[in-house]
Amino acid sequence: MRWLSGTRQEILSELDKEKYMRKADDQQIEAATKEIIDNVVSSGDRALFEYSRKFDQTELDELEISQDAINQAYQQLEDSVKTALEKAKENIISYHKKQKQYDFMDSEKSGVIRGQLVRPLERVGVYVPGGTAAYPSSVLMNVLPAKIAGVDEVIMVTPPSPEGVPSIILAAAKIAGVDRVFQVGGAQAIAALAYGTATIPKVDKIVGPGNIYVATAKKQVFGTVGIDMIAGPSEIGVLADAQADPAFIAADLLSQAEHDVLARTFLVTDSKRLAEEVEREIAEQLITLPRKEIAERSIVDHSWIILASGTTDMFDIMNEIAPEHLEVQMEDPMSRLHDIRNAGSIFLGAYTSEPVGDYLSGTNHVLPTSGTAKFYSPLGVYDFVKYSQVSYYTKEALAEVQADIALLARKEGLEAHARAVEYRFKEEDK
Amino acid sequence: MRWLSGTRQEILSELDKEKYMRKADDQQIEAATKEIIDNVVSSGDRALFEYSRKFDQTELDELEISQDAINQAYQQLEDSVKTALEKAKENIISYHKKQKQYDFMDSEKSGVIRGQLVRPLERVGVYVPGGTAAYPSSVLMNVLPAKIAGVDEVIMVTPPSPEGVPSIILAAAKIAGVDRVFQVGGAQAIAALAYGTATIPKVDKIVGPGNIYVATAKKQVFGTVGIDMIAGPSEIGVLADAQADPAFIAADLLSQAEHDVLARTFLVTDSKRLAEEVEREIAEQLITLPRKEIAERSIVDHSWIILASGTTDMFDIMNEIAPEHLEVQMEDPMSRLHDIRNAGSIFLGAYTSEPVGDYLSGTNHVLPTSGTAKFYSPLGVYDFVKYSQVSYYTKEALAEVQADIALLARKEGLEAHARAVEYRFKEEDK
Repeated sequence: MRWLSGTRQEILSELDKEKYMRKADDQQIEAATKEIIDNVVSSGDRALFEYSRKFDQTELDELEISQDAINQAYQQLEDSVKTALEKAKENIISYHKKQKQYDFMDSEKSGVIRGQLVRPLERVGVYVPGGTAAYPSSVLMNVLPAKIAGVDEVIMVTPPSPEGVPSIILAAAKIAGVDRVFQVGGAQAIAALAYGTATIPKVDKIVGPGNIYVATAKKQVFGTVGIDMIAGPSEIGVLADAQADPAFIAADLLSQAEHDVLARTFLVTDSKRLAEEVEREIAEQLITLPRKEIAERSIVDHSWIILASGTTDMFDIMNEIAPEHLEVQMEDPMSRLHDIRNAGSIFLGAYTSEPVGDYLSGTNHVLPTSGTAKFYSPLGVYDFVKYSQVSYYTKEALAEVQADIALLARKEGLEAHARAVEYRFKEEDK
Repeated sequence: MRWLSGTRQEILSELDKEKYMRKADDQQIEAATKEIIDNVVSSGDRALFEYSRKFDQTELDELEISQDAINQAYQQLEDSVKTALEKAKENIISYHKKQKQYDFMDSEKSGVIRGQLVRPLERVGVYVPGGTAAYPSSVLMNVLPAKIAGVDEVIMVTPPSPEGVPSIILAAAKIAGVDRVFQVGGAQAIAALAYGTATIPKVDKIVGPGNIYVATAKKQVFGTVGIDMIAGPSEIGVLADAQADPAFIAADLLSQAEHDVLARTFLVTDSKRLAEEVEREIAEQLITLPRKEIAERSIVDHSWIILASGTTDMFDIMNEIAPEHLEVQMEDPMSRLHDIRNAGSIFLGAYTSEPVGDYLSGTNHVLPTSGTAKFYSPLGVYDFVKYSQVSYYTKEALAEVQADIALLARKEGLEAHARAVEYRFKEEDK
């Protein structure tokens, strides 16, 4: 673990070096991704079958997974897991329903009505990674907000494999209410969703995490379709005071570290004693972890212990880090809420261990990373709707503003704009 | 104007050819943009002065425009224009205030609290194009929603010119409440905002339209900062029945066409007579337009008259077009609202001429184009906030769900996640 201390400014500039280091974009990955997308656009399904053979060593008969196969996977799921996933679903729904937004339509001046419509997207694509990163919990997190928003059709894509798509993923798709599932992965899946093929329908927006090819492809199709944020390695920040339990903190930091050798963990505290105890606890708890090697690499390379001088500095520093997950292990944590400006998901108090949000609290676990919580939000119902503005003017209402409109339009050199309004008051001359 | 008719499906597949044609990305522009960004990241302000010399033929002393210069520009503005801009501002504020969202915080089960915070972004950059595309109205449209959201600091960038930045743009910045203005344009301005230089502070999000270099740069820095949508040529769709006034429609189509030779206009109607009259009116009104050449090119190349068989087809077709601006010139237009699914800004009735939205109604004129209204929204207050999730569990509440969390975590192979929760119930063993 790397220790940082000093003034607020010294600590921030040290952290800045890490955060804003500009990645040399991998030109090779960009070119390869572009070629895959072009190929899917020109050859459609044929390209998808070929890429399955080439990248996934899988000879497919069909791209779509039948409803029968999905139902069967659901039937075979152990009851305990089914129950746990259903509980998670229930909590996700009850939390996300509160994010629903509604139309407004107001008549504010005589003859003028202005409003805003909230409409669901029509069709959405959800990417679910394959291999060891195939998480049933993520299927629920990506799909349910879309369903609550009222999206007509949710399409899931996930990489094929010689053993078939993991049945727990199909079962989770069934529980979440996915409409159709296609076994196609990588950049080719993103291309198929963005442009459509004979078999796979074009969607309006693509969400869900993936490897670097998937992320690059999403960035390349951005604008043709909507995409969610670009996800980086997972991370956690912990704000702790002297009364916090070092064993709890160590366990939570390790739960983040086991995700990925690139996962980042930040402990910000004003207690040196606590920091030292956390470091000792981590060393101890690491020993028996099955994913010890991953977690250890993450802790050695991407773990910071930051000694701040006082509470104000602690919050200032953490707000600059803008962590994906933020635990507040301090006295009276609820009273600290107004000091938090940037964080994806906030966990208050000693017993709100971060994994509760990964699985069961119902808050979303698809969150902004790498400091992007400064401007990105957790995945939510708002990602699956768009707004339309509405206005209505009577003739009298337009008459009142026509001179101002014409003046501004002419000032901008747009004569036809001025005339379009003035035309409405020339009927008698015609 | 191009006429389309036939079945709904025939018309849509004809339009699809236009809409989804994949642009060969301009590799040269992408490479040039990337080089500019790299250069700004490595050389900072020095690169900005050099690009001003090279691209804008302007030798600058300072990047920042002083508050004195801005105040002076404001003083010099004609009173009539000032009054019109102030009216526009007032209406923009009253409309956008309705978009404000608020925190929620609910205690739903014993010992569990879940909530969502809405927090403004801290610093936002607004790009304002130079030359003939420098519109004071757009300054208001981009800046005011950020101010209403509560953004701490709004930075405006706009290209330098040997004659200086147009004083009407500086006056509009003053009216809108811009905090600082820098004279820097193109991809170099986007790079400066995304990464920061000694003089220009790094922002959290960049909004505002620009040329192809600006748009490409925005796409390249996407993820390092937030960006708004990628804007294409302006467009309007008009839904009209037999009772509509062809002269009004022609005037409105021309107001769109005068923007740009690439501007697109769509008239969808079930009345052949009306369509023919609109075409005649356009030919007539075109003659005396100052921007006749631009408007004519747009009308010849990118203007469609679509004859639909009945009202249902009219709406189905228009929803596929998903226009930036949509006029409903039909009887009882308010009753049609529920048939509209995809449109940036909707103008209802004969007297809600589209330019009213460009200048004075208070709805935003920064809108999704090229069919992206299927998934993008008008620029709004929601673009300048982000959400944070909040959760709080008591020990008892965590105890109730710990078994389910541990089960799901282990099912996903994440042992440290299971242990982090279980650790909370082992204190007595320590």
